[in-house]
Amino acid sequence: MAVMNYLTQCTFDFGALAQLPKVLKGLGVARPFVVTDPGLKANGLLDRLLAALGAPPAGVFADTPANPTEAAAAQAASGYRAAGADSIVAFGGGSSMDLAKAMGLMVSHDGPFARLGASQRGSRHIGAIPPLVAVPTTSGTGSEVSPGAVVILEDGRKETFVSPRLVPLAAICDPELTLGLPPLLTAATGMDAMTHCIEAVLSPVVHPPAEAIGLDGAERAVLWLERAVKDGRDRDARWHMMMASFQGALAFAKGLGAVHGLSHALGRIKELKLHHGTLNAVILPHSLAMVGDAAPEKFVRLRRALGLAPGADLAQAIADLNARLGLPASLSAMGVGDAHWPGAREYAVSDLATLTNAVPFDVEKYDELFKRAL
Amino acid sequence: MAVMNYLTQCTFDFGALAQLPKVLKGLGVARPFVVTDPGLKANGLLDRLLAALGAPPAGVFADTPANPTEAAAAQAASGYRAAGADSIVAFGGGSSMDLAKAMGLMVSHDGPFARLGASQRGSRHIGAIPPLVAVPTTSGTGSEVSPGAVVILEDGRKETFVSPRLVPLAAICDPELTLGLPPLLTAATGMDAMTHCIEAVLSPVVHPPAEAIGLDGAERAVLWLERAVKDGRDRDARWHMMMASFQGALAFAKGLGAVHGLSHALGRIKELKLHHGTLNAVILPHSLAMVGDAAPEKFVRLRRALGLAPGADLAQAIADLNARLGLPASLSAMGVGDAHWPGAREYAVSDLATLTNAVPFDVEKYDELFKRAL
Repeated sequence: MAVMNYLTQCTFDFGALAQLPKVLKGLGVARPFVVTDPGLKANGLLDRLLAALGAPPAGVFADTPANPTEAAAAQAASGYRAAGADSIVAFGGGSSMDLAKAMGLMVSHDGPFARLGASQRGSRHIGAIPPLVAVPTTSGTGSEVSPGAVVILEDGRKETFVSPRLVPLAAICDPELTLGLPPLLTAATGMDAMTHCIEAVLSPVVHPPAEAIGLDGAERAVLWLERAVKDGRDRDARWHMMMASFQGALAFAKGLGAVHGLSHALGRIKELKLHHGTLNAVILPHSLAMVGDAAPEKFVRLRRALGLAPGADLAQAIADLNARLGLPASLSAMGVGDAHWPGAREYAVSDLATLTNAVPFDVEKYDELFKRAL
Repeated sequence: MAVMNYLTQCTFDFGALAQLPKVLKGLGVARPFVVTDPGLKANGLLDRLLAALGAPPAGVFADTPANPTEAAAAQAASGYRAAGADSIVAFGGGSSMDLAKAMGLMVSHDGPFARLGASQRGSRHIGAIPPLVAVPTTSGTGSEVSPGAVVILEDGRKETFVSPRLVPLAAICDPELTLGLPPLLTAATGMDAMTHCIEAVLSPVVHPPAEAIGLDGAERAVLWLERAVKDGRDRDARWHMMMASFQGALAFAKGLGAVHGLSHALGRIKELKLHHGTLNAVILPHSLAMVGDAAPEKFVRLRRALGLAPGADLAQAIADLNARLGLPASLSAMGVGDAHWPGAREYAVSDLATLTNAVPFDVEKYDELFKRAL
């Protein structure tokens, strides 16, 4: 059982879920409140979590929407308060973990929730939240180790909340929990991890340890993602994809880029209900094509990590990988149309991830990226 | 200015030394006690530290020996107490930083110092030490970010002290401070960093993020160490070697190996006064030869990181690098003889690093390693 301490204490391996009571005890808490989603309640995974907990939790919120919203977090927060809970167990994919972080902020911070957002320079107002243990059930978001949460606010903006206080105190990464993930969700979440690794490597922020982790995560994802998609019961592939996801989030300590800027902007369009990882996968090749020759040394290292020949077309290689994984080839194929862009472009430009893109990105650049990806 | 948070908050770049007052203020301390060595007092670097501090420190201990001892740490501890200090600034190479950690333990822990040692399972007795800021002046040890300190005890043992409490709260890595390091010391400390990276990668402990950082650090060291040795004023080379050192220590979160076991055992022989980094450099090729085919996948990745052809002889490549760097080719050349071994071998076997060697190492294996390296 690997116990790794960087930003978070992480217990990582098949069977790690059984460590949950010990981890909670180590944090000195006794009344955890579980945040999860309807899918995990339906497919029996929530029951496995509850069984691992031993004693019943203080309460459960199982209504996390596909893209977490301020309203849902507020609802969970009432549940938390009513239950007299003293800690949080976030169980699920990025949505459940981010919703748990948002709920944690709400139960420990007064005033309007939106003021804590990164676009309002809200990080300085963020203090401690209740002890949070994250138990991911997908391999992609890396929210179990990241200092961020992305939430759709009441005013419609998709806002990022960032603070070291939002890094879960502990993560339990048990690849067993991902064995039943369907192929398309495996592919989409896996490409989310891949995008984290690649955008983090390309970010101009100087952070060689994070960059090394990103390169390793990208190498791991390209070696194992297709196997995990082809055979969901392939335990080695599931282990490595959960690790790639973990590494992606450690890597993006140095920032993300325009793929995430555009993905967040489109992800907030309610009627489309677009999956974050799928959006990233579809946009990534086009963003890479636009970086072009601006980051030659990093492209050399990325090609090496991805097992490509020197000088190979990185953008095309990712597009080919998407095709082999059965992911859509364009935003149009996901239901996005030209009409969606005017209302989204400003959100992309003002997204936190835009600040650390490989090359400076303004509205015109985003217009081009959207057009290419459409 | 890169601010990187993994185990330690690290401010890293030319000119970072100027951030020292801000970092101390951020930690809420006002009376730092400086721990350094006679060389840095003589060559003027200590004056630069004091100038950067602005206000005079509570006190200075500048008598750190080449290999830190319990006696010297006790002397520094009296100075610390007499000065009414509230924090520690460790300024120097591994010796000053490790002595500062030992002093920190002494001023905050009652009872015999030796009981806190790793061989006595003393980590569980280690609580908080005064806030410690590390400012390295060599590129090798990585003690500025490591949870360990190595100290020669009164009874003659070279003991390792390990605890997350010994990770400095902040590190200030300013390559400017290494511009004047003489070629041989640059080479020896640089190979210490290289050994950390390689032994950490080879350790069987599962920790992919640390392994990725180790591979990146090894690649960096092989690219830049010769340049730093050839021209000490090469600022790029100095930057990268300080980074390789930092990465080596992040990497050895997953453990070290027999090179360090043997190096610690020989480093405690008082009359020889052997340099830790030089010992590591000399022993490393022989240890790699003994690992042989036991870790084929890791050897593939190490060869790639070091820019070697597939199937190249890794041990020979390190021996060749040592030669180009002007380092000794054998322990004999350093003054070690057969007669030193009987008194040292038990220390090697019982060294903490032995537990995580690439292949299990017993007394016979150490006999062979010593014989090869002699």
